[in-house]
Amino acid sequence: MYSSSLKKLIEHFTILPGVGPKTAQRMAFHVLAQNKKHQAKQLAEAMLESIEKIKNCSICRNYSDNTTCDICTSTKRQDDILCIVESPQDIIAIEQTGNFNGKYFVLHGKLSPLDNIGPKEIGLDLLFALLNSNNKTEIIIATNSTVEGEATAYYIAKHAEKLNIKCSRIAHGIPMGGELEYLDNNTLSYALQARTSIQATID
Amino acid sequence: MYSSSLKKLIEHFTILPGVGPKTAQRMAFHVLAQNKKHQAKQLAEAMLESIEKIKNCSICRNYSDNTTCDICTSTKRQDDILCIVESPQDIIAIEQTGNFNGKYFVLHGKLSPLDNIGPKEIGLDLLFALLNSNNKTEIIIATNSTVEGEATAYYIAKHAEKLNIKCSRIAHGIPMGGELEYLDNNTLSYALQARTSIQATID
Repeated sequence: MYSSSLKKLIEHFTILPGVGPKTAQRMAFHVLAQNKKHQAKQLAEAMLESIEKIKNCSICRNYSDNTTCDICTSTKRQDDILCIVESPQDIIAIEQTGNFNGKYFVLHGKLSPLDNIGPKEIGLDLLFALLNSNNKTEIIIATNSTVEGEATAYYIAKHAEKLNIKCSRIAHGIPMGGELEYLDNNTLSYALQARTSIQATID
Repeated sequence: MYSSSLKKLIEHFTILPGVGPKTAQRMAFHVLAQNKKHQAKQLAEAMLESIEKIKNCSICRNYSDNTTCDICTSTKRQDDILCIVESPQDIIAIEQTGNFNGKYFVLHGKLSPLDNIGPKEIGLDLLFALLNSNNKTEIIIATNSTVEGEATAYYIAKHAEKLNIKCSRIAHGIPMGGELEYLDNNTLSYALQARTSIQATID
């Protein structure tokens, strides 16, 4: 029914996230349409170029075109505060808030002994070397709040404690605008335990 | 926030159908992940190869790796019945029913004078040459039931009439399993007008 090249193309499209056989077929036919071929060629070339060119920054392990990334080389950012995240996507999310002006470190994963992912695989040797040599005053651990994410946070925090570096974890609790009624029990229990005192100022 | 290669890659991903900026970002980060790079490279190469290799069959204009496609060269298919469709995807849909054993002709579009798409742009000269030279006994026009699709069907039917070739249009009406209550007025009106007589056989 499909020509062999077309069949191969459809199969390869399914490697993209959220793309099943039906969407893959739609994408394959789309890129073959006469008026889309040029754009499709550009996409394929951009993919090959990026795979070749983009590497991990030698300092923070974020994706970068150069040996060190723009954030690490920036002189406008605080050098003494470091935010540790699981993936480069997390940096994008934090940058979009516009509320953090320090530097980052990307783990590209989280500790997961069952999958043979130990400290070395997530670059903790590089991180600890960075903490030893540098004048960091605070690290913010922003790993996800999964079991592995928490374990990773704990592991890093223990090391930072030895070096007398202030170590914090991003706050967990009720999302802004969230309604208690629809919240899961775990988050609500945590939010109760981690309650903060209200400081009302009287004018 | 993004490196320049990464920004370019995300932009290029948005050319795919159904892919907005958010999905494009997700796809770009996905193909850059260390364990996905190999597959992503294969996808990019398959895209380039397909764009280069897949052309229109010289007889039916379907996508094909060779000058003539598998369906046109098949000896197992009826050569005297021709189904005319708008796009190669329509062939896939009809083939999946397993109820048609003739050959196809792909228009790659439909007559649309406002967009400067005339008979030549949708290969009608090739189709009419095929009808003139060949021993076709019936053509089934399976263009979509849009205004342009209907106009295209009418245009082809008029030509086929001159050549004394039987010309039919795929049936329109209520989809199998469809409920009258939820059907649009146009389809229901058409289904009433185009009613067929029931032939009950008594055992």
